[in-house]
Amino acid sequence: METALREGERIDELGRKGYRLIQDTHSFCFGIDAVLLADFAQASEKESVCDLGCGNGILPLLLKGRDKGGRITGLEIQPEAARLARRNLALNGLEESAEIIEGDIREASALFGRASFDVVVSNPPYREAGGGLVNPDPGKAIARHEILCTLEDVIREGAALLKPAGRFFMVHRPRRLSQILSLLPQYGLAAKTLRFVHGSLEKEADMVLLEAVRGGRAGLIVQKPLILYREDGSYIEEVKEIYYG
Amino acid sequence: METALREGERIDELGRKGYRLIQDTHSFCFGIDAVLLADFAQASEKESVCDLGCGNGILPLLLKGRDKGGRITGLEIQPEAARLARRNLALNGLEESAEIIEGDIREASALFGRASFDVVVSNPPYREAGGGLVNPDPGKAIARHEILCTLEDVIREGAALLKPAGRFFMVHRPRRLSQILSLLPQYGLAAKTLRFVHGSLEKEADMVLLEAVRGGRAGLIVQKPLILYREDGSYIEEVKEIYYG
Repeated sequence: METALREGERIDELGRKGYRLIQDTHSFCFGIDAVLLADFAQASEKESVCDLGCGNGILPLLLKGRDKGGRITGLEIQPEAARLARRNLALNGLEESAEIIEGDIREASALFGRASFDVVVSNPPYREAGGGLVNPDPGKAIARHEILCTLEDVIREGAALLKPAGRFFMVHRPRRLSQILSLLPQYGLAAKTLRFVHGSLEKEADMVLLEAVRGGRAGLIVQKPLILYREDGSYIEEVKEIYYG
Repeated sequence: METALREGERIDELGRKGYRLIQDTHSFCFGIDAVLLADFAQASEKESVCDLGCGNGILPLLLKGRDKGGRITGLEIQPEAARLARRNLALNGLEESAEIIEGDIREASALFGRASFDVVVSNPPYREAGGGLVNPDPGKAIARHEILCTLEDVIREGAALLKPAGRFFMVHRPRRLSQILSLLPQYGLAAKTLRFVHGSLEKEADMVLLEAVRGGRAGLIVQKPLILYREDGSYIEEVKEIYYG
């Protein structure tokens, strides 16, 4: 299926199954965060998945490209992003196995019902409202700053959406880790796995990948570090595998 | 000064300033944890330091060997360990700049007074009481399991002992990280730095080094990972430096 691009749009190859993604260059474009989260998240083809704040639909596409997840539901509050996400599902023939719902993360469990998913994934805004320069473009600002939902909203609703023993996968900044690990048990989630992502072996972590379990027991594992670049600036094999494997 | 060893004792070189340590081989002997913590902890020669649960005195010696800390006070509940720690201070001529107090971590702030130290360090028992095999030797069991004090006791008393903006340094197991990061803010400590220690680049973390600040603000940094061994089993340069530098 060919899709006419509109002004300001670009189309990217996703490196799996020939999937492609239309992005609005005026709005938030996906980064390595989404790719690493799709690789880190685990969901069988029988499990239902909810993506809290799906933007242009990158995570549902990346998951489907890896044969992860059965029915995938993306929730997105911005109408333009939700429309683009639907076009992206159609572009890749995924209308039957994934859907995009326009709505507010803060009301997700009221919208879908409690304990209605096996897996929840989220690549939420990283920065607290008021922290750092806010992009004048509202789409970018909403994707990056906690303007329309906070970290606590994402964790609370993610937990409420999950069936018992359901899994929650999120990517975030290490600087929010204390808050994340304090909030999880308040909503019945136990942190199970962390993986820190470092630009190089000599740099502090830029991102943290998290798996938590609904009603799980404590016993956190910190996986081997994920190092992105060698000293010469080239991607390390594991990262190439994540992108193109 | 020569010191006669008693039955079951051994003496080890500490690799700095000619310092030596007598250990009771029937009791808990220090491991790489103490060495890494002494390297990670920062204390100027003007700052007072309290070591909560000092055992045979290894941390005060390792800190003094690195010119870290002014007056160092070690608190130890086991009389035999406290006596050995005092002998170790004397063996290295450190009786004037360090002291060992026999007492209970749970009463540390009552014993020394609140806000009485610039820096607190601790290498506490890692395992919850009842978790895993308990060593039949009480000295080893108390050093490894939370029999006489819990993680919460260490954090609560450590926080109470610190002056405003004082720093708390601890080494622990990653599996307790959720609990650690949840407890810190309850006692007025903000996690500032984490460093994960991995046996190799391919292995999950075995230890986590933590710095927290009394009354500090959030903004956690996860430092570059500390990798101990190369693939051929040899120590990596940074670890050699930590041991012998």
